[in-house]
Amino acid sequence: MKTVVVRNIDRADAEGVKRLGALGVSTVHEAYGRAGLMKPYMRPIWAGGEAAGSAVTVLAHPGDNWMIHVAVEQCRPGDVLVVGCSADNTDGMFGDLLATALKARGVLGLVIDAGCRDVKTLREMGFPVWSKAISAKGTVKAALGAVNVPVVCAGINVEPGDAVIADDDGVVVVRRKDVADVVAKGEKRQADEEGKRKLLASGALGLDMYNMREPLAKAGLVYLDRPEPD
Amino acid sequence: MKTVVVRNIDRADAEGVKRLGALGVSTVHEAYGRAGLMKPYMRPIWAGGEAAGSAVTVLAHPGDNWMIHVAVEQCRPGDVLVVGCSADNTDGMFGDLLATALKARGVLGLVIDAGCRDVKTLREMGFPVWSKAISAKGTVKAALGAVNVPVVCAGINVEPGDAVIADDDGVVVVRRKDVADVVAKGEKRQADEEGKRKLLASGALGLDMYNMREPLAKAGLVYLDRPEPD
Amino acid sequence: MKTVVVRNIDRADAEGVKRLGALGVSTVHEAYGRAGLMKPYMRPIWAGGEAAGSAVTVLAHPGDNWMIHVAVEQCRPGDVLVVGCSADNTDGMFGDLLATALKARGVLGLVIDAGCRDVKTLREMGFPVWSKAISAKGTVKAALGAVNVPVVCAGINVEPGDAVIADDDGVVVVRRKDVADVVAKGEKRQADEEGKRKLLASGALGLDMYNMREPLAKAGLVYLDRPEPD
Amino acid sequence: MKTVVVRNIDRADAEGVKRLGALGVSTVHEAYGRAGLMKPYMRPIWAGGEAAGSAVTVLAHPGDNWMIHVAVEQCRPGDVLVVGCSADNTDGMFGDLLATALKARGVLGLVIDAGCRDVKTLREMGFPVWSKAISAKGTVKAALGAVNVPVVCAGINVEPGDAVIADDDGVVVVRRKDVADVVAKGEKRQADEEGKRKLLASGALGLDMYNMREPLAKAGLVYLDRPEPD
Amino acid sequence: MKTVVVRNIDRADAEGVKRLGALGVSTVHEAYGRAGLMKPYMRPIWAGGEAAGSAVTVLAHPGDNWMIHVAVEQCRPGDVLVVGCSADNTDGMFGDLLATALKARGVLGLVIDAGCRDVKTLREMGFPVWSKAISAKGTVKAALGAVNVPVVCAGINVEPGDAVIADDDGVVVVRRKDVADVVAKGEKRQADEEGKRKLLASGALGLDMYNMREPLAKAGLVYLDRPEPD
Amino acid sequence: MKTVVVRNIDRADAEGVKRLGALGVSTVHEAYGRAGLMKPYMRPIWAGGEAAGSAVTVLAHPGDNWMIHVAVEQCRPGDVLVVGCSADNTDGMFGDLLATALKARGVLGLVIDAGCRDVKTLREMGFPVWSKAISAKGTVKAALGAVNVPVVCAGINVEPGDAVIADDDGVVVVRRKDVADVVAKGEKRQADEEGKRKLLASGALGLDMYNMREPLAKAGLVYLDRPEPD
Repeated sequence: MKTVVVRNIDRADAEGVKRLGALGVSTVHEAYGRAGLMKPYMRPIWAGGEAAGSAVTVLAHPGDNWMIHVAVEQCRPGDVLVVGCSADNTDGMFGDLLATALKARGVLGLVIDAGCRDVKTLREMGFPVWSKAISAKGTVKAALGAVNVPVVCAGINVEPGDAVIADDDGVVVVRRKDVADVVAKGEKRQADEEGKRKLLASGALGLDMYNMREPLAKAGLVYLDRPEPD
Repeated sequence: MKTVVVRNIDRADAEGVKRLGALGVSTVHEAYGRAGLMKPYMRPIWAGGEAAGSAVTVLAHPGDNWMIHVAVEQCRPGDVLVVGCSADNTDGMFGDLLATALKARGVLGLVIDAGCRDVKTLREMGFPVWSKAISAKGTVKAALGAVNVPVVCAGINVEPGDAVIADDDGVVVVRRKDVADVVAKGEKRQADEEGKRKLLASGALGLDMYNMREPLAKAGLVYLDRPEPD
Repeated sequence: MKTVVVRNIDRADAEGVKRLGALGVSTVHEAYGRAGLMKPYMRPIWAGGEAAGSAVTVLAHPGDNWMIHVAVEQCRPGDVLVVGCSADNTDGMFGDLLATALKARGVLGLVIDAGCRDVKTLREMGFPVWSKAISAKGTVKAALGAVNVPVVCAGINVEPGDAVIADDDGVVVVRRKDVADVVAKGEKRQADEEGKRKLLASGALGLDMYNMREPLAKAGLVYLDRPEPD
Repeated sequence: MKTVVVRNIDRADAEGVKRLGALGVSTVHEAYGRAGLMKPYMRPIWAGGEAAGSAVTVLAHPGDNWMIHVAVEQCRPGDVLVVGCSADNTDGMFGDLLATALKARGVLGLVIDAGCRDVKTLREMGFPVWSKAISAKGTVKAALGAVNVPVVCAGINVEPGDAVIADDDGVVVVRRKDVADVVAKGEKRQADEEGKRKLLASGALGLDMYNMREPLAKAGLVYLDRPEPD
Repeated sequence: MKTVVVRNIDRADAEGVKRLGALGVSTVHEAYGRAGLMKPYMRPIWAGGEAAGSAVTVLAHPGDNWMIHVAVEQCRPGDVLVVGCSADNTDGMFGDLLATALKARGVLGLVIDAGCRDVKTLREMGFPVWSKAISAKGTVKAALGAVNVPVVCAGINVEPGDAVIADDDGVVVVRRKDVADVVAKGEKRQADEEGKRKLLASGALGLDMYNMREPLAKAGLVYLDRPEPD
Repeated sequence: MKTVVVRNIDRADAEGVKRLGALGVSTVHEAYGRAGLMKPYMRPIWAGGEAAGSAVTVLAHPGDNWMIHVAVEQCRPGDVLVVGCSADNTDGMFGDLLATALKARGVLGLVIDAGCRDVKTLREMGFPVWSKAISAKGTVKAALGAVNVPVVCAGINVEPGDAVIADDDGVVVVRRKDVADVVAKGEKRQADEEGKRKLLASGALGLDMYNMREPLAKAGLVYLDRPEPD
């Protein structure tokens, strides 16, 4: 593992990231060909938090948050900090002091494949965090990791500068170069869904709207009027 | 596995189901002889949601929500949709479009042994869901399952038409033929508890109210004034 | 296992416990040399609950809450009930009736390495609980355990009379004899953090505040202007 | 829950069950339309154990093995004992004494959704067990359950008299009335696989054998000579 | 947390510990009133390993094995090293070099609430280990813990000098002062079981041997000749 | 997600990979700066299996093994197949027929972040597999994934052509360009360890060999002759 800090990274297009944020995680994930979604154990520490930004990445070690302190300096307004860990860990690597520092630099949120603490204060500050656990467990500052190198976080390989979108449904990551394409597909999908929503609300069936009856019959689905006797 | 859809099922008595709902999951479970409770990993996606209805059942496969689309048509007002899965899976099989379709048909809630997404919208819609996970993970429509056959959901075998009661404490299932009996026992239990609650609030001890002192002594419980020296 | 109930225990100093509660779990845990923290699976059943008291301990068996009934009588105002279990279990050992009884005796909260039910009522009562699970599963009253003996709860050995502090960040336990020392260290830490928070909010970097640059360089951290070519 | 023991059950056809055992779990599961498979956390306590028999079912409670003692009397040569539990539990409900009793009655193995102990002795006795855990944790004999009623075990609803097949791949359950059909389909499948195995061993590709190239192309699979530039 | 190493501890009686080892984990656990058993996630890294010794205890931090190196010096022939961890961790804190060092000092085995590596070599050396995980993950030597203080390991509070018995069924811990008593009860139990085993092998029923029929009837167990119609 | 198959990839140097295999997973992981190790839930399906090869990568979907069939054609002698999955899944995506096909092409083993079946036959064939689960659960062939694109498998981002080393300690991945460097460092480490092993076997202490006494004292470690009174 290279113990480096990369100072200059190419960030995702700010306007595009904002529009991905407006679409929300589920729509972005679908528009991205069902890719980029972190594992569902990543949960917001308070309901309703949302963030959409460009990733500054951190590789940390279990029980050690030294590299998060290092990463703060590399953050700019509009960034989301993404922390991967070299082994499974739930220690509370992040709390209100680090959040205060990140907020002062315009960082929009944190995504961490480990634990978080001071959740009450973070909720009061309105600083959103997606984490694997809530834990007060203190950490040391002993082992070097890296900042702004690719890291695996909750099953997704995140490159520095990737777009990171997070809300109540989870966290999705879009490659910088794919942002514009996903915005276009996602906004189209959203518009389509609006129409479908109205139809469904008025009692239309997905079976008809999506023309499923024929493929279902072809696949062998059988309708019975009554359960077969045992 | 039979890939069938059963159109006509006998539903639980609507009035009885409503009264079970008023009793709540914990009381119903006790009144049912401590049977019928789904595993505790089934959690409401928003606190305070409640549902009590007659089960329409779905057997789905991991990562595939085709059968949920099929099941919508079989639902009637007062139903609760119950989805079992042929293998452990947390993918987001259910979202706001399907909820819109179910709501249009009068369905009261969803119980799914897999993942759910669009949780913010579902909360805003007031559509309650109990699931194993929250996940934006998209699903395919490829494999046939079944609708209105018995399915195991979170450890409980659910028959079509069973009464399904769900609240913040979890999900409990009562056989259609047992509903009246459980209503009677549950309402009696609830009345009894009201009295106990008042006594306990005034400082009475369960040890005395439940006559536990004698059986405890008989079982060998010893009271010490002080810890024994180590 | 000794099946005993110890009637008289030495409790933690009430004023000290109160001040630990004001500091919160994360600060207490740090001030205690990063000791005493229960595993992070212990979560509050409703957000925002807080409790700080002297431990009355219970050793129970899976699916059996008899000893909790026994323990009620041993509780005094200012206590927190702490329940360990002889094997992993998520059954709903505690509900609103027991909470009513505890509240009547001035107990401030419950910490249980098992399940809890009636969560809606408990939230309405304002009775805080930290548990491993929420489950309506009923329990029997069949096996003797013990009250006011040392119990392991969520990875921590709790002695009767220990100070127990619980909030949204989890649960921490401080030995009775260490309370004054931890109060002193924790309040000093809290005062220090206030100053740090202001500095960080104004844009200062932890790297500078904590003099990390030199040890980082010494450990071999390298800054790159750009990612190295692959 | 009915606390009953059903004395007389219809057992699966012994010859059919034997032939299912010869096919093995994976083939039976496929021949049964991919149904009937218990969750993969059910593992043999020693590698290489195999059992195929007719289910005698037990519903037990966490930490309580009373009903297993009751069930022994109901077993006959060729049976497999299947134990479901009313809540998640890993206690050691079964050990060498119960195995000795079962062996004396001609029982072929145990499938238990809880823990097992005395694994060294059980291995030496050649008595195969599939369980959720290995644990020495002792159990009480306090709560009634049932024998020979339908029980959910590791996600599968097992009816008394169902065929139970278990080997290193896990445990599969076939309804009594479906045994002959599954035997026929499974033996055909096994014969087919023998031919395929020879072809594949000689270098043939499944892509060709199963005619997958066309559907893959239709679904949109693209072959690239080289990775696309990033 | 006190960062100390205690040099002199009182060890469990060597002859008594040996006899506990001969009884095995399940019998010792029962003879000890069903106390002292570590959680069942503690598994031997190779089947058939057995150890019975006096505990030298270590408190370590996640991803850090410094204290194990410190502990080696405090070990004597007949000891078993017991490592607790201040937070959940699966890193490979122990491998063949440390095992070589321990073996040279006559240590009989390792019990570690974290990960272990070099399992092939350890099996070849015949050095038994019970751990939470197998993992090659390397560790640092950065944070002080303690040696020969009480530590919680897999749910059990272990005092230095306690008797530790481990085999295929798991790990049980007996307080030093209780060893003689548990030996006596365990050997009596073992003798009793020998007789029971013979009776059961000859076809006797536990129902009769343990006089269960009357309490079962009293508790309300009903025998049916046939399943009740649904 | 791009649904592509990349035909030509650059493979890791065969001789280097072989030497990494001889070093074993733990040594390679250390020599690689403690990087590249998959999560410890990846376990060999039979003890003693070993594989070292160049990665052919597969991205599959839950419950769907179509892409594994596609990947076979892209394999060459000396390869190891590495399968990542777009969501957590334990279904039995791989069995003896696919192993026969891979073996015929000279593939050395399989690493799969999902389930595997036919374990008895695979053990008899001597075909090593590292998987997340053993499960007979059948899969469909419905959704396109990709072959020879980067995939995250058990927490590690694997590029096609990376060196994959697997044994009883787990699975480690080394970038193709780093193989020579890791071979050199690993063989040096191995030679060093040989000397250390002899010293330790003769009773030397790591405390002295690694000069730990001074840093421990500096960090504040205190030696006590006896436990402090409580």
